[in-house]
Amino acid sequence: MMKFAEYKNKILNEIFLTLDAVSEEKVDELTEAISSASRIFVDGAGRSGYMMRCFAMRLMHLGFRTYFVGETVTPGAREGDILIIGSGSGETGSLVARAKKAKKIGCKIALITISGCYSLGSLADWVIEIPAPTAKKETEYKSIQPMGNLFEQALLLTCEIIIMKITEKTGISSDEMFKNHANLE
Amino acid sequence: MMKFAEYKNKILNEIFLTLDAVSEEKVDELTEAISSASRIFVDGAGRSGYMMRCFAMRLMHLGFRTYFVGETVTPGAREGDILIIGSGSGETGSLVARAKKAKKIGCKIALITISGCYSLGSLADWVIEIPAPTAKKETEYKSIQPMGNLFEQALLLTCEIIIMKITEKTGISSDEMFKNHANLE
Amino acid sequence: MMKFAEYKNKILNEIFLTLDAVSEEKVDELTEAISSASRIFVDGAGRSGYMMRCFAMRLMHLGFRTYFVGETVTPGAREGDILIIGSGSGETGSLVARAKKAKKIGCKIALITISGCYSLGSLADWVIEIPAPTAKKETEYKSIQPMGNLFEQALLLTCEIIIMKITEKTGISSDEMFKNHANLE
Amino acid sequence: MMKFAEYKNKILNEIFLTLDAVSEEKVDELTEAISSASRIFVDGAGRSGYMMRCFAMRLMHLGFRTYFVGETVTPGAREGDILIIGSGSGETGSLVARAKKAKKIGCKIALITISGCYSLGSLADWVIEIPAPTAKKETEYKSIQPMGNLFEQALLLTCEIIIMKITEKTGISSDEMFKNHANLE
Repeated sequence: MMKFAEYKNKILNEIFLTLDAVSEEKVDELTEAISSASRIFVDGAGRSGYMMRCFAMRLMHLGFRTYFVGETVTPGAREGDILIIGSGSGETGSLVARAKKAKKIGCKIALITISGCYSLGSLADWVIEIPAPTAKKETEYKSIQPMGNLFEQALLLTCEIIIMKITEKTGISSDEMFKNHANLE
Repeated sequence: MMKFAEYKNKILNEIFLTLDAVSEEKVDELTEAISSASRIFVDGAGRSGYMMRCFAMRLMHLGFRTYFVGETVTPGAREGDILIIGSGSGETGSLVARAKKAKKIGCKIALITISGCYSLGSLADWVIEIPAPTAKKETEYKSIQPMGNLFEQALLLTCEIIIMKITEKTGISSDEMFKNHANLE
Repeated sequence: MMKFAEYKNKILNEIFLTLDAVSEEKVDELTEAISSASRIFVDGAGRSGYMMRCFAMRLMHLGFRTYFVGETVTPGAREGDILIIGSGSGETGSLVARAKKAKKIGCKIALITISGCYSLGSLADWVIEIPAPTAKKETEYKSIQPMGNLFEQALLLTCEIIIMKITEKTGISSDEMFKNHANLE
Repeated sequence: MMKFAEYKNKILNEIFLTLDAVSEEKVDELTEAISSASRIFVDGAGRSGYMMRCFAMRLMHLGFRTYFVGETVTPGAREGDILIIGSGSGETGSLVARAKKAKKIGCKIALITISGCYSLGSLADWVIEIPAPTAKKETEYKSIQPMGNLFEQALLLTCEIIIMKITEKTGISSDEMFKNHANLE
């Protein structure tokens, strides 16, 4: 059986190659857009949804008024709000339905996805492409990982970097973020 | 088999008897406390937790800064915040752990429960007792319903009434509440 | 200000009137369908979604293979599975998107709603109508309650009665249900 | 401002160093334990909780009877079940409360954490240590990332590798896993 260390090396190399293809410019544009947003709505389904929840949590720690779509205290969106969606396929039915509503309301839409050529891409104002190969969407190199793993890992790290860029910009420290950290659990 | 209409009559009668034993005064005290709260944290496990989420959602609709413990964008609690817990048994382990932390931080704690004589009751500043009989805690009359159903139904309605009392007090209309209603789903 | 006891009486009377209009026959048909289902998927958004989670939890307690759409361990649906949706408006975008997928896969769809004349109604194999008046949909009598409260309360109780009918049919006791009750919290 | 590519390099290097210190043997022991488990309960709070949900989802895709603690259809745990917890600090109050209950019931407990020297470590039958430095727990090298990011990323990848090891062992293909993938969303 392949060793933990071998898996680790291969996976980290895959993530390296995948993130290498992400556009610096697009990341900076989204970082800029988030920094000046009044309210941020975050959405995603399945494992991508969990990565986006990690992103939403850090945005809250940074002091942004952030909501995850579908959670208990998420209010109605308004013109000028940003909706940030993470979706590998870019065509998840319920995400598309919600993005269309957001568009109608006058929200700006940001999408982090494998390819902007699908339903969600056509609705988005900003698209960050993370061209990870998956079982369903092939690219130049193959991943040894099952299903959408590689995209989801790269999605997490892309969001982590966006958080760090905002932190750098605003000068908010990790200590200050801890003040917003949930403390009842 | 018993008819839907018969079940309905029996269940509504059980809820009527159970809510009849709820203290007007205690309800008014909690209503008052919520009305002047700066931030409200809501907690509960299982089905009681779902009733409390319904309550948290309406508090958000009314314009209160409300959070459900454990959800993505729930920040850290601070001195002066209120934690409102719904728990039939009043001794759910993880709720007790969280209530103790809240107490230490300096939050005020409100509890809606069957009896205040258990762990959570001893931590609470306000206790509303809904003396519903359950399989585990008998009272004067018996419920034909399984498990904690009767408590959970009465918990929902008690919270609904608290919302209506706040609405009456503040003059916020159902129309104004709709403006805060989630609109992306 | 109106008293707790007055609110209680008015709300219980509203629920009584609303449930009075629910069809015994439709309830029995859905009870029958659930009893012979191999796997049950449950869906709903917002507060209706929380009522449906309460329903899903009891179905699990009764021993049914039950899943709530969108939760972590919910598998893919297959031909022959039942999808049960609770939705006041009957036209929530993401619920419609998911119901259409379920239909395509070959699932049977059950809907509990205010009126079957909307998008979800046209997709459903079974429709239980709970004709609660809401701010958006008027009926014969008016509710003093805000937003969809009355529908949501009546939805909860309708589901409770369906659980009790299944319990009566199968002879499963509250004690046996407790064996399946979550015990780590 | 630091570039996306620079952040990427630094973060991937941090993850590399952190995962380098993970014990092959401990990973193999947990992989073995999971492979022969009848039912698996997964737990975690905050961002670690979202990583553990990703893990639970893949275990379900592999065909294991998997549940995330606190979700709607999670049944009671029994003697012989495994509870797998992901927690950086190893001392989150509500996780400790639940782990103690699990222990009492006779479940085996596995923990993935920064250090086994804390409350959860003393309850666990298997401990995988991921010695990531955090703001609160220093190690040999420092992370440029805020809060628990590095642990959480390494936790995700450790779980991904465990899934791949199980896949390799059992011969289940990515195609077969897709059959269990949620398909209504």
